[in-house]
Amino acid sequence: MLETVTSPTLLVSERRVRANLERMAARANRHGLALCPHFKTHQSLEVGAWCREYGIEEITVTSLRMARFFAAGGWQKIAIAMPFNPREIGELQVLSQRVELSLFLVDSKGAAKLAAELSAPLGYFIEVDAGYGRSGVSWRDHASVRSIIRAAGHHRFRGFYVHSGHTYDAKTIPEIAAVHQELLDRLGELQSAFSDLHPIMAIGDTPACSTQEEFRGIDRIGPGNFIYYDLTQVQLGSCGLGDIAACAAVPVVQHKGEEIIVHGGWVQLGKDSLHLPSGPTIYGRMVLLNQDGQWDTSRPMGTVTKLSQEHGTIHLPESLRAEVRVGDLVGVLPVHSCATVHGLRATGDTRFLA
Amino acid sequence: MLETVTSPTLLVSERRVRANLERMAARANRHGLALCPHFKTHQSLEVGAWCREYGIEEITVTSLRMARFFAAGGWQKIAIAMPFNPREIGELQVLSQRVELSLFLVDSKGAAKLAAELSAPLGYFIEVDAGYGRSGVSWRDHASVRSIIRAAGHHRFRGFYVHSGHTYDAKTIPEIAAVHQELLDRLGELQSAFSDLHPIMAIGDTPACSTQEEFRGIDRIGPGNFIYYDLTQVQLGSCGLGDIAACAAVPVVQHKGEEIIVHGGWVQLGKDSLHLPSGPTIYGRMVLLNQDGQWDTSRPMGTVTKLSQEHGTIHLPESLRAEVRVGDLVGVLPVHSCATVHGLRATGDTRFLA
Repeated sequence: MLETVTSPTLLVSERRVRANLERMAARANRHGLALCPHFKTHQSLEVGAWCREYGIEEITVTSLRMARFFAAGGWQKIAIAMPFNPREIGELQVLSQRVELSLFLVDSKGAAKLAAELSAPLGYFIEVDAGYGRSGVSWRDHASVRSIIRAAGHHRFRGFYVHSGHTYDAKTIPEIAAVHQELLDRLGELQSAFSDLHPIMAIGDTPACSTQEEFRGIDRIGPGNFIYYDLTQVQLGSCGLGDIAACAAVPVVQHKGEEIIVHGGWVQLGKDSLHLPSGPTIYGRMVLLNQDGQWDTSRPMGTVTKLSQEHGTIHLPESLRAEVRVGDLVGVLPVHSCATVHGLRATGDTRFLA
Repeated sequence: MLETVTSPTLLVSERRVRANLERMAARANRHGLALCPHFKTHQSLEVGAWCREYGIEEITVTSLRMARFFAAGGWQKIAIAMPFNPREIGELQVLSQRVELSLFLVDSKGAAKLAAELSAPLGYFIEVDAGYGRSGVSWRDHASVRSIIRAAGHHRFRGFYVHSGHTYDAKTIPEIAAVHQELLDRLGELQSAFSDLHPIMAIGDTPACSTQEEFRGIDRIGPGNFIYYDLTQVQLGSCGLGDIAACAAVPVVQHKGEEIIVHGGWVQLGKDSLHLPSGPTIYGRMVLLNQDGQWDTSRPMGTVTKLSQEHGTIHLPESLRAEVRVGDLVGVLPVHSCATVHGLRATGDTRFLA
């Protein structure tokens, strides 16, 4: 298969994706949670089709653009996990005629605008900031919640949605657990205060959803990264190295002894880096690929040490220096799969492996 | 014009681009240099058309993919500034039938392969590493240069090409000058050693090409970033804030008092950051946009302090807190215009301003 690959290309391991889906779906079942994964990581109709086989019916996306893409691919229930942008109201109206859209509301002025200008009722979540410090209404701010619900008028309040991205700052599973427990406490208070409205309580981060076994009060989870995982999740303890399901195949264009130069820079791989406990900052791990495009993480790996726009520099361990040649393809396991996948969607192809 | 913009969009100021082109073309003329700009920054046929008006005939790109794009847009002379990738030989052959391609060679095995498998002669540069430490043959390694030329057989040696990306590590114009002078010395030696072949001596970094007035021995320059510039170049001293010609227009989706949340994350803006001497790390500077999409850098600016996939967090100075509202578009001047432009090409539109 690889002999037909000439330029940077995303490899997706169906076997690994299915194992990751299987595990997350089992966890959701175990805890009575609806699994509505975020599709921003894979952005793929093929991978989406696999998701359906694990009982997934509603999906999460990060933009109207992405909602349109998945609506065209046949998805009927889509939540846009970005605070409502009043400039898009006309386009939302068009799309909502074809699919069941849910929006995120975060303030009463936006909610009032939605009520005034869009007559067909949409569902909405109130996005809650429970400590991450990005978008959303503070979990303490019940007054704002009430005024949003009031202002949104005929639109349908579905519940509360939190992305607790600060689990990414955790260094260990107990630290993830601590963030997660605090989140459950805060959401519990919110749920009690609005219990008469029977809100859906939804959370969405991969580290907690991959490692925790307590979900008291939660109804729905929307992780996205878990479908492919990456080196960041390995470092957090969310998965093992063998669970990473997406890999960039990049051509070797120069061999410098200890280092190789590949066609694959931040355009393809994304610019995320990882500070290894042992010292160096890396932009990915290089794996050898066999003829089917499969990689084996038990073999020695190289380290991506530098990226420019389309050039990557990889440091080779001594045992691989003779094995890699100019004209070969090597694999790069991503630091952040969302970024690598996004990059290769814009500049390369995707090949699905068994 | 802005009223029709609903989602993240690239704004390009034609007036500023032309001023940047005018200045670089004048510098090239002053020093008898061919200006063959790198088109990886703008990746735009429209901006390319403006370039032609400044006497530009040959362009530099970073991949075969980009060469194909500009060939389809009518460019006839294209240099691919990435070491030759033997896997692409078939596609290079196809493209070379339509346009005059030049490649970068860095080793004799690749050169031999090119000679054996591609009968129509192509031009090539030998890429030289004169201190940056990325791709290319060491400037000291005359033996490798000779063996590449020998192995390349009927293909046409055009000269030596250096990207001295380490000027980006310079902090001041005198530091850029020091890197540049050392480069000129090293290239001078190389030129003497191969003077019988009359090599074209080419360099390509924006910091040196924007600030230096000595180009002894150099025949050709290929900077790319100067067409748009960015905050990194401002900090280096390559340009002023008012020279930045590209700006991301992003919708405000939440107002949190001191901060706003915009639809515009690393997907749109790129992940490059800048450590300001005063302390904070920023991902861009926010400017107000008028109805024509124009921005004025003499007004107070906000600071992009955090990015996730499609969310951006911007800190507002006190004077702007009342002026910005949910539903507005604000501008973000890029830390690295190559990354912002690339990001918005994949997820948004481009609007050209007067």
